[in-house]
Amino acid sequence: MAMSPNNILAVDGMGGDAAPEVVIAGLELAALRHPKAQFLIFGDTARLSPLLAKTRRLKDRASLRHASDVVGGDMKPTVALRLRDSSMRRAIDAVLDNEAAGVISAGNTGALLALSKIVLKTLKGIDRPAMAAIAPSAKGDVVMLDLGLNVVCDARNLVEFAMMGEIFAKLVLGLPTPSLGLLNIGSEEGKGNEVLRTAAAALRESPIGAQFYGFVEGHDIAAGTVDVVVTDGFTGNVALKTGEGALKLVGDLLRRVFSSGPMAKAGYILARGGLKRLREWLDPRRYNGAVLLGLNGVVVKSHGGTDAQGFAHAVDVAMDMISNDFNHRIAEGLAAMDRALLASEPLGTPHG
Amino acid sequence: MAMSPNNILAVDGMGGDAAPEVVIAGLELAALRHPKAQFLIFGDTARLSPLLAKTRRLKDRASLRHASDVVGGDMKPTVALRLRDSSMRRAIDAVLDNEAAGVISAGNTGALLALSKIVLKTLKGIDRPAMAAIAPSAKGDVVMLDLGLNVVCDARNLVEFAMMGEIFAKLVLGLPTPSLGLLNIGSEEGKGNEVLRTAAAALRESPIGAQFYGFVEGHDIAAGTVDVVVTDGFTGNVALKTGEGALKLVGDLLRRVFSSGPMAKAGYILARGGLKRLREWLDPRRYNGAVLLGLNGVVVKSHGGTDAQGFAHAVDVAMDMISNDFNHRIAEGLAAMDRALLASEPLGTPHG
Repeated sequence: MAMSPNNILAVDGMGGDAAPEVVIAGLELAALRHPKAQFLIFGDTARLSPLLAKTRRLKDRASLRHASDVVGGDMKPTVALRLRDSSMRRAIDAVLDNEAAGVISAGNTGALLALSKIVLKTLKGIDRPAMAAIAPSAKGDVVMLDLGLNVVCDARNLVEFAMMGEIFAKLVLGLPTPSLGLLNIGSEEGKGNEVLRTAAAALRESPIGAQFYGFVEGHDIAAGTVDVVVTDGFTGNVALKTGEGALKLVGDLLRRVFSSGPMAKAGYILARGGLKRLREWLDPRRYNGAVLLGLNGVVVKSHGGTDAQGFAHAVDVAMDMISNDFNHRIAEGLAAMDRALLASEPLGTPHG
Repeated sequence: MAMSPNNILAVDGMGGDAAPEVVIAGLELAALRHPKAQFLIFGDTARLSPLLAKTRRLKDRASLRHASDVVGGDMKPTVALRLRDSSMRRAIDAVLDNEAAGVISAGNTGALLALSKIVLKTLKGIDRPAMAAIAPSAKGDVVMLDLGLNVVCDARNLVEFAMMGEIFAKLVLGLPTPSLGLLNIGSEEGKGNEVLRTAAAALRESPIGAQFYGFVEGHDIAAGTVDVVVTDGFTGNVALKTGEGALKLVGDLLRRVFSSGPMAKAGYILARGGLKRLREWLDPRRYNGAVLLGLNGVVVKSHGGTDAQGFAHAVDVAMDMISNDFNHRIAEGLAAMDRALLASEPLGTPHG
């Protein structure tokens, strides 16, 4: 089959709790939504071939490449780096070799980051990559970053995250001028720590200063106060998982309420149109697909425990980024931003 | 009236967005649940007297003391400290003077902390006080601390928070051996930063080591994986507010679903028993009343924007602590803990 790398996604066929079955089933679902997409799947061909043969859409739009190793879910990144023929490594290599425009994996996050950084390198002007994802809010979807790659961040890191998040929100959420907020424990200017105050001052002076709302608090995430919530990886990871946990709690309790008796069941049936839409809208699978921003290539991480529907949503994110030429756009945006920032430099030099 | 300080709560009559009306209405509600409680209310007697006169239960169980100043909601703590006759200051002074066993305020959090620390001092053996509150989970109520007093914490601070949280959970939640977790971005031992790893090692060796579960993640809060979630004030504040925001989002969306048409309304009516219980259980007012732990006296902070019901819940927390002689119990627990920790000291000396 003739392939142009612009619509080719490299796939780690063996990553995730229920790989390779969920990976192939997810790609089959995604293939329907992305009629031009093609997939380059790496892994154990003895297991992948029969799965692929059974698909309807996918079999004509996917190529298999054998990779003999698998990066385990609990494997340390340093160990994963030594596996030369892992499905994850080979899929990332395909982006470096320009055989694919991006890569997706449901495997080990730490290994995916370490391998992506070593193979693809960080974008010029970026000190550290960040992980971004989309969360639901009262005013539509919200971008959050960083979600765990950078436990400690300096002001420059936060400013870079804001820049990358702004471009991500433009391309993936389709917002012309997304608003940005720095996550803090109060909205007043003096709140938080020195890193946050320095980052806020730099953002106000930056080319995206007009879009910078200022500090936001935890409750502003679900309220949709801003389109992009910027924070360090520790806080972002805790916030995202806390929010997910709270939504899951209410979902579980609602299920219990509506199955508590015949009256409640009848009530559910009467209101089920709206309840179903609400459940679908808050479905964590719809928000699957975290993106490693700041690398020379599109790298998308699917949740390891998701199902085919969830994996397909992560493929959606990857295809959105590929078809919008995300990496080119982000490099342009960063260059413009960096020129402006270097002119009025409150951040010092990067330590990358 | 004859007062024994053991059931007397000092009240900042002027703290909060709708003071003094909400304060008096909240005390009136709480008086019903605490038939032995008495209240010493500080503030503008010209405004408080007529409100008090209109109450049924409260008027015989409350004394008014005039205080001419009010700590504003946006006032800097350093400014609040200079107000000698503020209702907040006078209420805290009443605890120092042994006229009351605890104090409650819906006013400025920073000012309440600063005044409480200066007037009441921190408990012997405690480096820094922490703010604790209760949140809902799938397995019952969960204690979280710190919620914002300490933006940066060292390992000793986290261990002290764990100790105080353990005793708080015993007394206020009535759990004989509450389980404890340190909030992190992964549950594996190597996750997070050095402060968390050192604190975890110290907790494992501590007298409450058997109750220490290890690291927990954001989603574990609502799952109720542990009874006490220990974290620094920045992360705790963001997590609590993010969870509250997510619950509010679902609540708002559910209201919209059930008012979307006659069928959905009928559905609500059929399931309303369970839905009402669910709403009451998740009602943020039920979780109102954050506690400043680690001071020589019971200090409870009500949310500034709550209503009378919410303020009454905060009074419940204060009365629970007073009637269980919380401060004596925490001093005992800390002394025992400190002896054990000093014997096998991985934490270095406190910097307080």
